[in-house]
Amino acid sequence: MTTAEDCTRWWETSVSRIAPGEIDLRGYPVQELIGRLSFPDMIWLMVRGELPGPGQARLLEAALVAAVDHGPQAPSIASARMAATCGLGLNSAMANGVNTLGDVHGGAGQQCVQVLEDVVADGRSEAAAELVARYRQERRHVPGFGHRFHPRDPRRDPLLNLVAEARDAGQVKGLHLEAALALEAALSVGRERPVPMNIDGATAVVYAELGIEPELARGMFVLSRSVGILAHAWEEKQSGRRIKGPLPPPLLADYTGPRRSMLP
Amino acid sequence: MTTAEDCTRWWETSVSRIAPGEIDLRGYPVQELIGRLSFPDMIWLMVRGELPGPGQARLLEAALVAAVDHGPQAPSIASARMAATCGLGLNSAMANGVNTLGDVHGGAGQQCVQVLEDVVADGRSEAAAELVARYRQERRHVPGFGHRFHPRDPRRDPLLNLVAEARDAGQVKGLHLEAALALEAALSVGRERPVPMNIDGATAVVYAELGIEPELARGMFVLSRSVGILAHAWEEKQSGRRIKGPLPPPLLADYTGPRRSMLP
Amino acid sequence: MTTAEDCTRWWETSVSRIAPGEIDLRGYPVQELIGRLSFPDMIWLMVRGELPGPGQARLLEAALVAAVDHGPQAPSIASARMAATCGLGLNSAMANGVNTLGDVHGGAGQQCVQVLEDVVADGRSEAAAELVARYRQERRHVPGFGHRFHPRDPRRDPLLNLVAEARDAGQVKGLHLEAALALEAALSVGRERPVPMNIDGATAVVYAELGIEPELARGMFVLSRSVGILAHAWEEKQSGRRIKGPLPPPLLADYTGPRRSMLP
Amino acid sequence: MTTAEDCTRWWETSVSRIAPGEIDLRGYPVQELIGRLSFPDMIWLMVRGELPGPGQARLLEAALVAAVDHGPQAPSIASARMAATCGLGLNSAMANGVNTLGDVHGGAGQQCVQVLEDVVADGRSEAAAELVARYRQERRHVPGFGHRFHPRDPRRDPLLNLVAEARDAGQVKGLHLEAALALEAALSVGRERPVPMNIDGATAVVYAELGIEPELARGMFVLSRSVGILAHAWEEKQSGRRIKGPLPPPLLADYTGPRRSMLP
Repeated sequence: MTTAEDCTRWWETSVSRIAPGEIDLRGYPVQELIGRLSFPDMIWLMVRGELPGPGQARLLEAALVAAVDHGPQAPSIASARMAATCGLGLNSAMANGVNTLGDVHGGAGQQCVQVLEDVVADGRSEAAAELVARYRQERRHVPGFGHRFHPRDPRRDPLLNLVAEARDAGQVKGLHLEAALALEAALSVGRERPVPMNIDGATAVVYAELGIEPELARGMFVLSRSVGILAHAWEEKQSGRRIKGPLPPPLLADYTGPRRSMLP
Repeated sequence: MTTAEDCTRWWETSVSRIAPGEIDLRGYPVQELIGRLSFPDMIWLMVRGELPGPGQARLLEAALVAAVDHGPQAPSIASARMAATCGLGLNSAMANGVNTLGDVHGGAGQQCVQVLEDVVADGRSEAAAELVARYRQERRHVPGFGHRFHPRDPRRDPLLNLVAEARDAGQVKGLHLEAALALEAALSVGRERPVPMNIDGATAVVYAELGIEPELARGMFVLSRSVGILAHAWEEKQSGRRIKGPLPPPLLADYTGPRRSMLP
Repeated sequence: MTTAEDCTRWWETSVSRIAPGEIDLRGYPVQELIGRLSFPDMIWLMVRGELPGPGQARLLEAALVAAVDHGPQAPSIASARMAATCGLGLNSAMANGVNTLGDVHGGAGQQCVQVLEDVVADGRSEAAAELVARYRQERRHVPGFGHRFHPRDPRRDPLLNLVAEARDAGQVKGLHLEAALALEAALSVGRERPVPMNIDGATAVVYAELGIEPELARGMFVLSRSVGILAHAWEEKQSGRRIKGPLPPPLLADYTGPRRSMLP
Repeated sequence: MTTAEDCTRWWETSVSRIAPGEIDLRGYPVQELIGRLSFPDMIWLMVRGELPGPGQARLLEAALVAAVDHGPQAPSIASARMAATCGLGLNSAMANGVNTLGDVHGGAGQQCVQVLEDVVADGRSEAAAELVARYRQERRHVPGFGHRFHPRDPRRDPLLNLVAEARDAGQVKGLHLEAALALEAALSVGRERPVPMNIDGATAVVYAELGIEPELARGMFVLSRSVGILAHAWEEKQSGRRIKGPLPPPLLADYTGPRRSMLP
C-alpha cells in the first residue's frame, strides 16, 4: 500500500532538513552559517555538500566575479531587459535571461571543463596537440579558446594568475591549468594571431582545478551571470520604458517571403 | 532618418562597456576587479553602480547566505527538481525555479522592505503600532512576520544581531531594525504566542538598512535562492530519475468533477 | 494523521481523471473527443469545463487566429528567436516567449475585457463617454484602443464583423460590442484622427461576449501567440544561426556611465 | 559601414510582414485569414509556410486535441499549478509548464517521428523488426511504444483510425502508419502482453504522415499541451490557494544526509 511516507520519501534530499524551528543546510544548522560563511563558501557547501578547503572558495569567487556580464548584446541580458519592459517582475525577467544560457550561450564552459578533464586523464604530454589536430580535422572549434570580438579576453590573465598562485600554495594541483596552456599553445601554432583562452576557457580552468563536474560548471556560470542579468533588468525597470524589442521604432524587421492573397 | 546609432542608443546602458579587448563593469576594467572584489562586492557594484561601504557587503552577504534554501517542498525548489527530471539543462531547471519567486513566494521580503520604509518615513514612535492595528482591521497579514511552520525562524536572530553590530559600528543607521522590532512587539501584543520576524522580515531589515529598494530586494532574494535551486536541481540530475511529478507512482490526483459522455 | 489520500487530495482537480486505460477530460472519455471536437472546442471545454454553444467556438477561433503574430520586433517573438539561437529546445524557446506576455505586452486585452465588463455592468448609455473622460483626466490610456504603429489595425474589422454576425444570429448578446463601439466613438471625439480598436480591443470584444473572464483572456492570447512564437523559433532554428542578440555584430550597445579605476 | 538596414536585415523573417495598417502572415493579409482559416489551418500556415491540403488540417487537429492533458501528476501541469499559487500571471505559469516539455517529458514524440522516418527511409519490410532487435540488444526503449501506466492508451485507436481514413482518401501515404504498426507487432513478439503505441507514438504517426520534422513535432506537442497547462493553471488560480508545493502541509521531505555542526 502506498503511504504518506512514500510521498515524503519520493521527495527526499540530502541538501536540507526542515523541522519546526530548525533548518539544516547540508547538515549544518543555518544559524551557525549566517555571518560565518562567505557567499562563495555557501555556494560550495550547498552544491557540493562539503565546505571548501583553503584557497578554494577564493578561486571559485574569482570565477563567479569574472563572468557576471558581457553587455546587453548578449542574449541572456537582452532577453531579461526586454522582459522587464513587458511588465514582468525581476524574478521572471531573470528566469528568461537564465533560461537562454543553454548549450550555445552557456555551454562552452561546460564543454571546456570536459576537454580539460579528457586531456588530464589522457596524461601524455602530446594529448593537447593531438586533440587540437583532431578538432581541426573535424573542423570543430575547441570550446573555451578564441573570441569573435576580443583579440585577448581581459579576464584571462587575472583568472589564470590566481590559479597559478593557488597551485604554488598547494591548494590545487595545476594539471588542468597546464592542459589549458598546452591547448592554447597548440591552437596558436601556425597562426598569425594567437588563440588565447576566453572567459569560458579561463573559468573552466578554475572549475576543473576545483573538481567541479562539467555540467555543474554551467550551473556556476548561471549563478554568476544572474548578477549581470539582475543589474540590467533593474536598470531597464528603472528607465520606465515599455515594450522594448530588438529594434528601435520605427524600424521594422525585413520581410523576405512572398506576397499572396486568399482573394479570388 | 533612423541610423545604426539609433540601434545602439536604444540598447544603451550604464552597467557595462564592451570594446575589443576591454570589458568595463560600472566603469571599472574587469581585470582590476577579479581577485580584488568579493562576490557580494561585485553584486553590490553591478546592481547599485557603486562599491559598498565598510561593513555593507558583509551584511548583504549574510542575507544572501541566509535565504538559499528551505527544502524541496518550496515550489521554487520542487519546480526545479521536476524540471531536472524532464531532461532540462541546469539553466532551464533554474529558470523554472527562479520564475516561481513571484509576488507570493518571493514578494514578502519586497513588501516588508516597503513597510519598514513607510514606518521609518513616518517617524512617529506610534507608527508601527498603528500600522499593525490597521492591518488587523483590514484582516491583512503584515509581510515578514510569523511563519506557518516555524514558531521562531532560526535565521532571525543571527541576521538581526549582525544588523545591530553594524549599527553599533556606525555602518548603518539602525532605523529599519528599530521599526521591525516595534512591529514585532506590536504584533505580539495580546497574543498567547509571539509573532517573530521570519526570513523575509529579517532579510528585509538588512536590505532596508542598506538602502536597497523594495523591488530590488526581491532580485537579491532571487540571487540567494538560486543557490538552493541549483543544489537541488543538481542533486536530482545526479539521481538519474526520469519525470518526477508531485506524487510518487502509482498515486494519482483525485478527480472531483462529473463523469460524462459524448455518445448517444 | 496525514495519509497518502491527503497527498492525492492536495492535487485534486476537476479538469481530468486518469486511471489505467482511461483518460477523461472534463468528464468525457478522451477517445470520444478525438476526431469529434475541433481544437477550439477542446480549448473551450478544457478551460471552461463545458462544450461551447453554437457559433461560440467559431468566434473563439477567429480571436485565436487573429493574434498569432506581429513580427519579430515584438519582444515575445524576439526573445524566442534569441533563445533558439542559444541552443534551447523549441519548448524552452517558446517558454521564454510566452513568459514575456506580462501585464504590458499581454495585459491590454485582459484590461480591456475588464473595461468592457464595467461599462456593460454600469448599463447607462453615458457610461462609455464618462469612462473616457475619466481616463483622460487621469492621463491614462484606455486599454485596447489606438496603436502606436497602425492608423487602423487590419484585424479590427473582420473580428467585429464576426461578433456582429453572431449577435444577429442570437449566439451572443452584443452588449460588449456596443460598449466597445461607444468607447471608440467617445475616444475619437475632438481628435483629428480616430482612435480605433486595436487587436487587444477587438479580441477583448470577442472574449467578453463569450463570457471569458479578463484574466483568462490573457491565457487565450498566450495560446494564440504561442503559434507565432513557434513559427519564428522554428525559422530561427532552421537558419542555423548561433547566439543572436538584439544588435548585429559588430554593433555594440552604447555605454552611458563613467569610466573609473581601482588602481592607485 | 554598419547601417540601420543591417539591423533590420539581422532580424529579417519570412513569417510575417508588418507595415502601417498592414499585417501579412506568410504573405497573406491577416484580414483575409480571420474567419476563413481554422486555428489548425493557421498553425499549419504559420509554422510550415503553406496552407494545408485536404484532410491534412483535420489530422493535425486530431493530434492537437488528443494530447492536451494527462493530469496534474505530469510535471508540466504540476509546475504550472505550483507557479499559479506563487502569484505568477497565467503567462508565467504557462511558461514554466511549457519549459518542462524537454527531451524526456516532451521528446518521445520527436524521437518517434525520427524512428518512423528511419524505418520508412530504409524501405525494407524487415526494417522494423531489425530496429526493435537492435534497441533490445542496446537495452533501449523504442520511443512511442508502451506506457508505464496504461495497458492500452485510449488515444491510440482513434488517432490511428483517422490516419487510416486519410490514407484511404489519398490524403496521406500511410507509410509511417505501416511502419508504426510493424514496430508495434515486432515489439509484442515473445511477450505476454502487447506493447501498444502510446500518445507519443500515435501522434508521431500523424506528424510523420504530414511531413512534419521530428523537432517540429515537439513544437506541435507544446501547442497542444499548452491547453491543458492553461486549464490547470486557471483552475488553481481560481482556487485562491497560496504556495502549493508537492507535499500537503504538514508533510516534509525526508532528509537523507548527515547531521553536522560548525560549533567547537
